[in-house]
Amino acid sequence: MLKPLGDRVVIELIQTEEKTASGIVLPDTAKEKPQEGKVIAVGPGRVLDSGERVTPEVKVGDRIIFSKYAGTEVKYEGKEYLILRESDILAVIG
Amino acid sequence: MLKPLGDRVVIELIQTEEKTASGIVLPDTAKEKPQEGKVIAVGPGRVLDSGERVTPEVKVGDRIIFSKYAGTEVKYEGKEYLILRESDILAVIG
Amino acid sequence: MLKPLGDRVVIELIQTEEKTASGIVLPDTAKEKPQEGKVIAVGPGRVLDSGERVTPEVKVGDRIIFSKYAGTEVKYEGKEYLILRESDILAVIG
Amino acid sequence: MLKPLGDRVVIELIQTEEKTASGIVLPDTAKEKPQEGKVIAVGPGRVLDSGERVTPEVKVGDRIIFSKYAGTEVKYEGKEYLILRESDILAVIG
Amino acid sequence: MLKPLGDRVVIELIQTEEKTASGIVLPDTAKEKPQEGKVIAVGPGRVLDSGERVTPEVKVGDRIIFSKYAGTEVKYEGKEYLILRESDILAVIG
Amino acid sequence: MLKPLGDRVVIELIQTEEKTASGIVLPDTAKEKPQEGKVIAVGPGRVLDSGERVTPEVKVGDRIIFSKYAGTEVKYEGKEYLILRESDILAVIG
Amino acid sequence: MLKPLGDRVVIELIQTEEKTASGIVLPDTAKEKPQEGKVIAVGPGRVLDSGERVTPEVKVGDRIIFSKYAGTEVKYEGKEYLILRESDILAVIG
Repeated sequence: MLKPLGDRVVIELIQTEEKTASGIVLPDTAKEKPQEGKVIAVGPGRVLDSGERVTPEVKVGDRIIFSKYAGTEVKYEGKEYLILRESDILAVIG
Repeated sequence: MLKPLGDRVVIELIQTEEKTASGIVLPDTAKEKPQEGKVIAVGPGRVLDSGERVTPEVKVGDRIIFSKYAGTEVKYEGKEYLILRESDILAVIG
Repeated sequence: MLKPLGDRVVIELIQTEEKTASGIVLPDTAKEKPQEGKVIAVGPGRVLDSGERVTPEVKVGDRIIFSKYAGTEVKYEGKEYLILRESDILAVIG
Repeated sequence: MLKPLGDRVVIELIQTEEKTASGIVLPDTAKEKPQEGKVIAVGPGRVLDSGERVTPEVKVGDRIIFSKYAGTEVKYEGKEYLILRESDILAVIG
Repeated sequence: MLKPLGDRVVIELIQTEEKTASGIVLPDTAKEKPQEGKVIAVGPGRVLDSGERVTPEVKVGDRIIFSKYAGTEVKYEGKEYLILRESDILAVIG
Repeated sequence: MLKPLGDRVVIELIQTEEKTASGIVLPDTAKEKPQEGKVIAVGPGRVLDSGERVTPEVKVGDRIIFSKYAGTEVKYEGKEYLILRESDILAVIG
Repeated sequence: MLKPLGDRVVIELIQTEEKTASGIVLPDTAKEKPQEGKVIAVGPGRVLDSGERVTPEVKVGDRIIFSKYAGTEVKYEGKEYLILRESDILAVIG
């Protein structure tokens, strides 16, 4: 299990199927870099200068949209993950 | 539904019709990048170093003016949105 | 009406007539970019890390001097405005 | 009257006569850019993150030395002024 | 013994064996720079502006994943270590 | 008299005589830029975000070592001074 | 005596003898820039925004490892020292 530190979040990429107007599914190379993910693990949150820890706004299982190219790719037990800072997450799909 | 995080705001672009002095409606390519939007969703606000959360100054439905090129374009359920930080919003049209 | 956010201020440019020593009024292209404006609307002020909001030092109607090239030009109902941060305002002409 | 904002200060340049060892007064172009000024107006001071305002250390009438090239030149009622931040003032000549 | 200062952590690199799909172990030059380590020593933590010290989230013995190229390589008693800031650690493998 | 502002300090350069191993005094051009000075005047200290002023660690008369090229050269009543921030002072020679 | 200011520390470089596997002592030019030092003097510590001073984590006599190229070289009474900020010290060898 990956336990992220501070305000970090471990996510799994979600490949979103992209169809053209005519309904043709585009092969992988024609698609944009993915921007969608599922939260796998959440850190305890960042610590403020006041000493307080900020409770993260996301939780395990959330589907999220994040900034393209943000985060670090990590391979763990044969699977690919992305470790982001919570501030790289734009929105939760709810 | 897109639920933005922190001080982020989801907006929908408003295409403003641009006429020349002679009343001719300019085609799309001759127009400036839009600077106007409608607020679709508002995050809980950013957290200060004191631990306090700042209540956003905008609310759902507000028509706003924002910095050109600010934010990240996001496609969700076939529609285009822009996710901005509240600090990229210049003014509310009221 | 434009309601600026945070420490932003909406101003209207004031064209200052420039005469040479000999009394000749210079045409527009020979003048420097304007540095004078009139305050049209004032935001609620910026929020400090302590959670306190700083009351702006300018008010509607003030004539001000601001940093050249500061701010964002905005067209609203056919008129041109400039949206500045209060920190771009150098002085009030009183 | 120019009323500077925040930690800004309005100054008037003081031209210091520069003589060479032989007593010859150098013409303007041979002199360094002036570094001396007289304080004409003082802003209310900058606001700290604690919400406190810092009382400026200079007062109207003070002769000061400031960083070369600091500040913004402003022409007001036919006279040239310089608007500096107090932090650009190095010392008061007392 | 190396006693790291502030929010620093001393780690030992863990070489992870990499096999291709066909089960062939790749020689050293074909592998990525390691991203995995074992915590050998932990500093007392960084000091916040409030004067409070933040207890580190990692402890001696933890297996961690860290940002590639982060930290400073140090040779001590013939062994190679890496001294990182805790903020360069992405996650604990638990 | 020069009264420095904030955390600024006025110093007088101390020319340190440099001898080679053989006892030859090197002419001026062969010496490094001076790094030693004597404190002539000390500002009231910088103001923290808490509103507190930090008492300077140097006092008039102290011999100090400072970062090469730090500060601003100022000529006052025919003498050359250097105005530094206290943070540019590395150590007091005591 | 050199009394460092704030969070500064005066150190003396420790030349570490480097032998190759075959036991040959490498001449000076083949060695890396030193990274080891002995603490000679410690400043009172840096002041936080809260007004509190942080007690340094190193003390006179400590053997330390520091970031290569950090600090300022200072010659005092014929000896070479390095003045570092405590944050440039990676670890104490204890």
